[in-house]
Amino acid sequence: MSSKTDWVAVDWGTSNVRAWGLAANGTQTFSNEADRGMGKIARGDYPSVLAELIGENAAPGTPAIICGMAGARQGWLEAPYLDTPADLTRLVQGAVTPEGTDFDARILPGVCQRTAGDEDVMRGEETQLLGLLALRPGFSGTAILPGTHSKWVEIENGRITRFSTAMTGELYEVLSQHSVLRHSFKGDTVEGPEIEEGIAEGMRAGLESPSLATSLIFRTRAAALLSGKGADWCSGYLSGLLVGVEIGGHRHWLGQVSVPLIGSARFGRLYGAALALIGTTGEPIDASEATIAGLIAARAQA
Amino acid sequence: MSSKTDWVAVDWGTSNVRAWGLAANGTQTFSNEADRGMGKIARGDYPSVLAELIGENAAPGTPAIICGMAGARQGWLEAPYLDTPADLTRLVQGAVTPEGTDFDARILPGVCQRTAGDEDVMRGEETQLLGLLALRPGFSGTAILPGTHSKWVEIENGRITRFSTAMTGELYEVLSQHSVLRHSFKGDTVEGPEIEEGIAEGMRAGLESPSLATSLIFRTRAAALLSGKGADWCSGYLSGLLVGVEIGGHRHWLGQVSVPLIGSARFGRLYGAALALIGTTGEPIDASEATIAGLIAARAQA
Repeated sequence: MSSKTDWVAVDWGTSNVRAWGLAANGTQTFSNEADRGMGKIARGDYPSVLAELIGENAAPGTPAIICGMAGARQGWLEAPYLDTPADLTRLVQGAVTPEGTDFDARILPGVCQRTAGDEDVMRGEETQLLGLLALRPGFSGTAILPGTHSKWVEIENGRITRFSTAMTGELYEVLSQHSVLRHSFKGDTVEGPEIEEGIAEGMRAGLESPSLATSLIFRTRAAALLSGKGADWCSGYLSGLLVGVEIGGHRHWLGQVSVPLIGSARFGRLYGAALALIGTTGEPIDASEATIAGLIAARAQA
Repeated sequence: MSSKTDWVAVDWGTSNVRAWGLAANGTQTFSNEADRGMGKIARGDYPSVLAELIGENAAPGTPAIICGMAGARQGWLEAPYLDTPADLTRLVQGAVTPEGTDFDARILPGVCQRTAGDEDVMRGEETQLLGLLALRPGFSGTAILPGTHSKWVEIENGRITRFSTAMTGELYEVLSQHSVLRHSFKGDTVEGPEIEEGIAEGMRAGLESPSLATSLIFRTRAAALLSGKGADWCSGYLSGLLVGVEIGGHRHWLGQVSVPLIGSARFGRLYGAALALIGTTGEPIDASEATIAGLIAARAQA
């Protein structure tokens, strides 16, 4: 170790878990990752998974600030949701302290929206949004967090005022693997002109007619049957379509020139291209960078 | 047999196949059914499945008019699609004659729409629509065929002028079985006040905001987590929502007071309730009745 680990930042997802050691001066001392997300382990496994991730990098008693699914009802210890409007500057006050570990662990809460007819939940994204406020001090407006369950979040004065989840990524998965559309796909897709053409066509259709989403998806099959579209085109079309539908349906959330896109580089490009078609600029922010910044900000609140 | 079978009407679906014997005077002489749909048998199995269905009820050489997936590329023998505008009064002219059977079998074609950006296909529904024209002579306007892949079809002067497929039923299946929403469901649902409440709530949301379909589906999960909604409510909500989205998205297709709903009694009630919310009356027509009427009309064209 180049310097002593002062505390550990942990992002516990559904599939994977990642830990970063941080020195008192803010530099990173180590990082580690394992496919031991909430969906893959039992409640009693959390202390040993955390110990394995940290290894010899930090002494017992070292603080660990954890965000994500460890705080879910089926996780390590439930960290009850903060209600909207949720004050991100006081996120750590909703943290819970799990037992059975040698580390000084705290699990951050998620955020929920109890508005009748508009219920919604997030776990993990609230920490990335706290990170957004650290990376872009004073940010107000809408941020988009694309992914399996994309989040559209309105932030005002450090608070999450409302949000909406679109099942974009998961819809792509279940439709391409379990529906009749699967016949139009093959294994992993690669980059190429057919994918790009499909993306562009799907994106335009989705942005133009989000209210026909459940019909437009069937075109993946019909275009394969009638127009000889290949698996690459179909894959591009379906992903472009679902992104277009998500953005087209939430268009009224966009009152600003530039929108933070917190996610992978691939999603940054995809959503950025769709936003450009309706005259908005996407500002890609790496998801891990936002998570670490959020955990650091939460640690500073403690 | 009360009277001699003059010919056999066959509806060959993806999962099941059904056959009805018809006497020269139009009365039904027998009916039979098997779970030997296109998805469950090989190309070489069709002659023996047809022979088993007919059994001793008709002599070799008896005509059999077949609609549905037997004419798909992966079926018995491909019956190429008729293009829109597709003249239903000449449907039989697109039929193909498969070999290897003792019966005088003809397979009716499906219909496709090759409009760029709006490709679509149907197989089987065209026969039900021909049946609609027999049951409601002179019908023009939009008909809805709810189901796994719901069809919205515009008919003018005996022709299918355009149509749109919504993956309503299949979306319900894949979301409730393969997505994160599955945690909000249990096995088979039964009737009850919670289902009805969920249906009504989902229907209103879908009709009001079809462009937010990919977000509204997530409420199934959020309402279960936050508002303690049970599996019955969730099941009702998701089905009502998807029907509402389908109808809300196709609202501009509805220029008439009364719309034929060709499908099961359950779908007739569900779609009828949603249509009533927007001031339209659904006119339920039993799917089997429409299929038989269509096959009879096709036989008369031969």
